[in-house]
Amino acid sequence: MSRQRVEPRLPRGMQDHPPALQAMREHVIDVARGVYERYGFQPLSTPAIEYREVLVGPGGTEANQSIFDVDAREDDELGLRFDHTVPFARFVAANQQDLPRPFRRYQVGPVWRVDKPGPGRFREFVQCDADVVGTQNPLADAEVVAALRDVFAEILPTGDGEPPRFRLRVSDRRLLDALVARIGEPAERGPDVFRVLDKLDRIGLERVCLECREGYVDDSGAKIPGLGLGEEAVALVREFLALGGATRRETLDAVAAFLGEVRGADVAVEAVGRFLELLDAHELDESEVVLDVSLARGLAYYTGPVFEVELVDSSVGSVGAGGRYDDLVGRFSGQPWPGVGVSVGVDRLVAGLAELAEGGGTGGGRARHRPEVVVTCMDRKRLPEYVAIARELRAAGLSVDLFSGGGGSFAKQLRQADRLGAPVVVIAGGDELKKGVVTLKRMDCAEPDSAESREEWLAARSGQREIERAALVEGVRAALAEAVGAAGEGRSAGPAGSGARPGPPA
Amino acid sequence: MSRQRVEPRLPRGMQDHPPALQAMREHVIDVARGVYERYGFQPLSTPAIEYREVLVGPGGTEANQSIFDVDAREDDELGLRFDHTVPFARFVAANQQDLPRPFRRYQVGPVWRVDKPGPGRFREFVQCDADVVGTQNPLADAEVVAALRDVFAEILPTGDGEPPRFRLRVSDRRLLDALVARIGEPAERGPDVFRVLDKLDRIGLERVCLECREGYVDDSGAKIPGLGLGEEAVALVREFLALGGATRRETLDAVAAFLGEVRGADVAVEAVGRFLELLDAHELDESEVVLDVSLARGLAYYTGPVFEVELVDSSVGSVGAGGRYDDLVGRFSGQPWPGVGVSVGVDRLVAGLAELAEGGGTGGGRARHRPEVVVTCMDRKRLPEYVAIARELRAAGLSVDLFSGGGGSFAKQLRQADRLGAPVVVIAGGDELKKGVVTLKRMDCAEPDSAESREEWLAARSGQREIERAALVEGVRAALAEAVGAAGEGRSAGPAGSGARPGPPA
Repeated sequence: MSRQRVEPRLPRGMQDHPPALQAMREHVIDVARGVYERYGFQPLSTPAIEYREVLVGPGGTEANQSIFDVDAREDDELGLRFDHTVPFARFVAANQQDLPRPFRRYQVGPVWRVDKPGPGRFREFVQCDADVVGTQNPLADAEVVAALRDVFAEILPTGDGEPPRFRLRVSDRRLLDALVARIGEPAERGPDVFRVLDKLDRIGLERVCLECREGYVDDSGAKIPGLGLGEEAVALVREFLALGGATRRETLDAVAAFLGEVRGADVAVEAVGRFLELLDAHELDESEVVLDVSLARGLAYYTGPVFEVELVDSSVGSVGAGGRYDDLVGRFSGQPWPGVGVSVGVDRLVAGLAELAEGGGTGGGRARHRPEVVVTCMDRKRLPEYVAIARELRAAGLSVDLFSGGGGSFAKQLRQADRLGAPVVVIAGGDELKKGVVTLKRMDCAEPDSAESREEWLAARSGQREIERAALVEGVRAALAEAVGAAGEGRSAGPAGSGARPGPPA
Repeated sequence: MSRQRVEPRLPRGMQDHPPALQAMREHVIDVARGVYERYGFQPLSTPAIEYREVLVGPGGTEANQSIFDVDAREDDELGLRFDHTVPFARFVAANQQDLPRPFRRYQVGPVWRVDKPGPGRFREFVQCDADVVGTQNPLADAEVVAALRDVFAEILPTGDGEPPRFRLRVSDRRLLDALVARIGEPAERGPDVFRVLDKLDRIGLERVCLECREGYVDDSGAKIPGLGLGEEAVALVREFLALGGATRRETLDAVAAFLGEVRGADVAVEAVGRFLELLDAHELDESEVVLDVSLARGLAYYTGPVFEVELVDSSVGSVGAGGRYDDLVGRFSGQPWPGVGVSVGVDRLVAGLAELAEGGGTGGGRARHRPEVVVTCMDRKRLPEYVAIARELRAAGLSVDLFSGGGGSFAKQLRQADRLGAPVVVIAGGDELKKGVVTLKRMDCAEPDSAESREEWLAARSGQREIERAALVEGVRAALAEAVGAAGEGRSAGPAGSGARPGPPA
């Protein structure tokens, strides 16, 4: 092996996910999978690598700048997918003869975008998508929104009467089309106006209005050109963006009054009304799911309802989104397969959960990213017996690390158990094994509250107890339950006796 | 949207995984995750994209030809990972101060290789890896082998006394080093000899022996150069490859006798002996885990024990592998972090399972890639009531598809339920809902064995029954249990009355 060393660095925008973070990602994915399966979505997977023309479409513009190019020393241009929706549309077009119609599928996996990295913004991130294709029925729109809501409600549960910790906003591109008519602009101006409105969360209302008129100079000194709308039109945009009511229905009534008789308003308002009825049928809480007509969404392929989720009291931005795309499959096929879907942004969400946990919230996460038990190896001549102990505990379903470092002292092995975060350690020297016993140590050093004798108190204080080797599994289970119970009481992990606890029984 | 269509095709060696296949992949992954967590491995994830120099190492040769190049319009050369081991070594080198030592992690995700596609050979495939780094203790070698064995035992269970359906072969690079000494070649010839031996499964013993001597012309007419070993050396290689015994220990004794006193033989045999003792402590069955000294393994970074799993009666080749790599982390770091790991080849394994299922075996797979219930929409004015029915069933944890196609007739909705593979359908017209009942239909058309009246017989024959709307969840659960029970009895899915079944009660 060469002596020359390679620097162990990561490319720009890429990140490792160490165990605590990865466990949180897996928790989010498991929740999303569970919800999607309850809604009848079937699992599907497509490859990360697609032909570039499949990704960017016939215009060659969609997400073009954001695609990682891939080279396999062959003729055709390849790229990494930037979402799951476009590859799914390719799959549907290629397999339409064999698919049930409508077809519901979910997909989980990384996507890649050459974007500017930032807090909560990565170049590789996992998305969990659920889509229904082959129908324009608003039932399908309501199904994906209800599923998206259920995912977040399960990840961020709240007690009775507590305000929700996420907000799911819904709107409809057709309301924005009607806005364009209301301000007297031709329909072709729509995409330009939507592009500016989509910046609302990032640049704020005043700059959006400036960009609608003559443009402005941003903080870096760059000139942002304006759309050239008149003063009256911009006043109407401002009024539209402020529309709202106490309920989804009240908001829609306000929108209907604002739009009046303009081209397309009646159809759009009626369609959104049917959609809202179905959200009511799903019993989606008004505080969790709101109609917000300022929602625009960036992607060009949306044609109807659009959705977006954000965390309350978090700076990470959108953690889930989606919408209806009735023309996307048509890019590949003569047959129309209108579709609607949602996507959970796993990495953005995990970044947000980590932020909330720092702020005192509960960040979620799964228990099993750390072993429940470490089996120490105190006597190298008895390795097969330690293996047998680990084997029995694993057969009982416990997560067990068997110390396999080189010649670790007792103190070193306990330090390792502490670093691994294992609540219980099994200790057995040769003498103990001969006597048919093992020692269990609770790493959280149980408070000796319930001790009835000095010996019990001392044992509890050190967190140690001796159990029969034959009763290993029951003994470890009991010690684990105590450690989990103690952690649940929110007690400090400091050494025993540090608080105003009673002393040992005399 | 442009009228020009894009062909919905996939790049070479890439594949979609439709629901039945994807469910099988997720089953394999879930099993591996569960086993790895029981063994105390912690989840970790690294990005798909790495610097090319990280992937190929300082020599610039490892897997060089197999790497997909990636371009992010920046200066540095990037590539897609070809395994999880090299990126893990990079992670360990970069984070060694913060890691417990030893450190166990598992990782699941796709890897990419520009290899020639073939049956069970893809250019993108998922691997589930488990590794222990920071120790040379053979306990760690035994742990990863035992975990690998448990994964396959759970995926391919067998009854008492039945032969295993997989075979895990273990060996050790140091035995091959001793073989090189035994045939009188210098140690530097080792890698050349191993490369030829690694082809044994693919090209067979005779061609391996020819390649050890003067080479041969393969089926395509290409000249394969030989290593130029003498006749006596090749006879010894042939003898070595045939070494074996009834148990791992007997095989090792035969190897020890063959190697005799040559350089390194005593150390290698003793090390393998210690490893075998620990496999015994894990109670790994001799029929499942065998010592096979013909196992070489291709990757250059292995330094000690090597492992490989294959399915019995399958043509897909290796479905799992691993070994010890004591110098890999050193590529990035001055600190030695010797390691050992295993990898389950999920896609190769799923291809093998699909093949075995075709041959009459049980292919495994999870239940939830199809909905358990389809709720039909018989009366469009009552959509909220159908939504409520779906909502209740989902709240009870069932997987429910709510028919959301456009204006589907009853027959069309039943055909859809059939295509989706849902065992139970909920049917409720306006009249039924007014009466407070719904109809359940079992799609497998229950055999009317237990009917006690003609009415019951007819109802059972059509698979339909009426239940109280208020008892929806219990009713659906009962119907599902019957359908699963009927499927479990292995009865035909054909229409009722097709067999020698009794007629209806009079």
